[in-house]
Amino acid sequence: MLAAHYAGNRTMTVGEAEPSPPGPGQVQIAVAYNGICGTDLHILSGHMDARVDTPAVIGHEMSGIIAALGDGVEGWDLGDPVTVMPLAWDGTCPACLAGNSHICQNLDFVGIDSPGALQSRWNVDAGLLVRLPATLSLQHAALVEPTAVAVHDVRRAELEPGQKAVVIGGGPIGVLIAAVARSFGGDVVMIELDPKRRKAIADLGYTVLDPLEDTVAWVEAWTGGAGADVVFEVSGAAAAVLGAVDYAKVRGTLVVVAIHPEPRPVNLQRVFWRELRLLGARVYQRDDFDTAVALLDTGAIPADALITKTVPLRDIQAAFDALTGGEAMKILIDVQAGQE
Amino acid sequence: MLAAHYAGNRTMTVGEAEPSPPGPGQVQIAVAYNGICGTDLHILSGHMDARVDTPAVIGHEMSGIIAALGDGVEGWDLGDPVTVMPLAWDGTCPACLAGNSHICQNLDFVGIDSPGALQSRWNVDAGLLVRLPATLSLQHAALVEPTAVAVHDVRRAELEPGQKAVVIGGGPIGVLIAAVARSFGGDVVMIELDPKRRKAIADLGYTVLDPLEDTVAWVEAWTGGAGADVVFEVSGAAAAVLGAVDYAKVRGTLVVVAIHPEPRPVNLQRVFWRELRLLGARVYQRDDFDTAVALLDTGAIPADALITKTVPLRDIQAAFDALTGGEAMKILIDVQAGQE
Repeated sequence: MLAAHYAGNRTMTVGEAEPSPPGPGQVQIAVAYNGICGTDLHILSGHMDARVDTPAVIGHEMSGIIAALGDGVEGWDLGDPVTVMPLAWDGTCPACLAGNSHICQNLDFVGIDSPGALQSRWNVDAGLLVRLPATLSLQHAALVEPTAVAVHDVRRAELEPGQKAVVIGGGPIGVLIAAVARSFGGDVVMIELDPKRRKAIADLGYTVLDPLEDTVAWVEAWTGGAGADVVFEVSGAAAAVLGAVDYAKVRGTLVVVAIHPEPRPVNLQRVFWRELRLLGARVYQRDDFDTAVALLDTGAIPADALITKTVPLRDIQAAFDALTGGEAMKILIDVQAGQE
Repeated sequence: MLAAHYAGNRTMTVGEAEPSPPGPGQVQIAVAYNGICGTDLHILSGHMDARVDTPAVIGHEMSGIIAALGDGVEGWDLGDPVTVMPLAWDGTCPACLAGNSHICQNLDFVGIDSPGALQSRWNVDAGLLVRLPATLSLQHAALVEPTAVAVHDVRRAELEPGQKAVVIGGGPIGVLIAAVARSFGGDVVMIELDPKRRKAIADLGYTVLDPLEDTVAWVEAWTGGAGADVVFEVSGAAAAVLGAVDYAKVRGTLVVVAIHPEPRPVNLQRVFWRELRLLGARVYQRDDFDTAVALLDTGAIPADALITKTVPLRDIQAAFDALTGGEAMKILIDVQAGQE
């Protein structure tokens, strides 16, 4: 079998590896497709070297077929199409005991803290499996995990039908949030700096603003002087954080989706003045995965538009480089290509 | 009658003024006591000169007795002891229409945007009156308004009985928040830099930490490794904002009580990692005033400890100077002294 490893020094390597049989309670998945996400790019950049032991098989946005069953696995059959919710919690920390196991204080994020899906045979605990409907293509199914992120973000915001949302940042997660928010009955405007991305977003039927224009005045007019119900900060830019509160209505919500490695200046005067609510949102819960599968299956997510291209596992370094250079939205890795 | 004015240039003046009769729907209050708050100090410092027209009668933490009734006022009698909820909203802006009239987008804060209580006869709309029980002294009743702020902050945090709260900053509002949180069944620790204030807070029966010690480790041990349910940032210090998130549990709440005129660095990485909730809290709602009256009336608020001294209106400049210099917690102005 083939496996891709993050080897440190901004390098992905691909090589032959020996498959191992699934352990008790595990299944072996023949991984079909694996999407590369922003966290994978962070790993490649070396920013997460303190957390990731090299060489590491990474990857956590995947789809595949069950290829073998370990002892004691029930409810699953060979050939079942699946994806994985890549969270392993300890079940004993205060966060788990309070019902927040998805943000366990000792969370193992599979594909970061333990081996991931960028290998043609992947053993995972059966408890992590998420069933896929036969009507959902395995390519689209590789978007279930990032779609679950977006579902979690929109649910965390408690967006209600008819409410207005501003999404700052038009990368894959931003577009997914916009699509989920719309499917939940929200009215969405996006803000994106890059003209090419603006064009692509407009082609999907979304109103998209250039942040260099007077977006605050636009949102104020759009909302009848009230401000937006929810603002999603997905850009990761310090200037976006500073300005995000200006879009929000009295008692509006700002969801911090992007990862900000450095503390960012926040306009707390505005947070106070309008009694705003600023929420952190991390990963997802099981319901978010189930909803993500359903949204992709019904075509509510513009999956084809998000998938810029699909490349074989052997071309993974070029795929990482293209994404780092901003040349693509989502690139899928065909993990089986060349394995037949 | 006497009236005190903010005259600009860090100066309060006191002089004779002519009382006017209450207009239709108004009552005339013989103001008994008026507390000086942080906002008044901001006004004196000149930071709010763009908002306050000089000369301005300021003051909004008060108690008094109804001295005259304007036409059409019903339900009130001469001699009734009252305080005032000093908010006048337009009732027509999006915030008001959404039920958040206390943060009306065109709010008139009485005592800042319109004349306040630092005068021996004060005419206010009867709708702003809050009835005081005969068992509550007028001195303690001058603390109703800041206590209502604290009630609003604790309610906004949704603090539940048995939960643990960290209060950063041991000035009057910090102590009031601690007292309210305790009266709501919370378990409270305070953090205060000034040793004299720490001593005073400890004398009130609160655990109080020096921020120069390892307060994060202390809170972690106190909460069994979970972190605090709620953190109140009342200090206004940039360093406190940066560190506040480190006290909070997974899905914990940080209430921003202090006013931060400049954007402050916030550790959004921690907000994300623990799915924290950061809430702005501003002024109060009617229920908060009613609860504040009840808490003061039952002795749940350490009113005597908070009132450092009471001085006549003619000494108001010295009182402002003492508070600016950090020499007192709360100074009450006896507005009737010298009027008899």
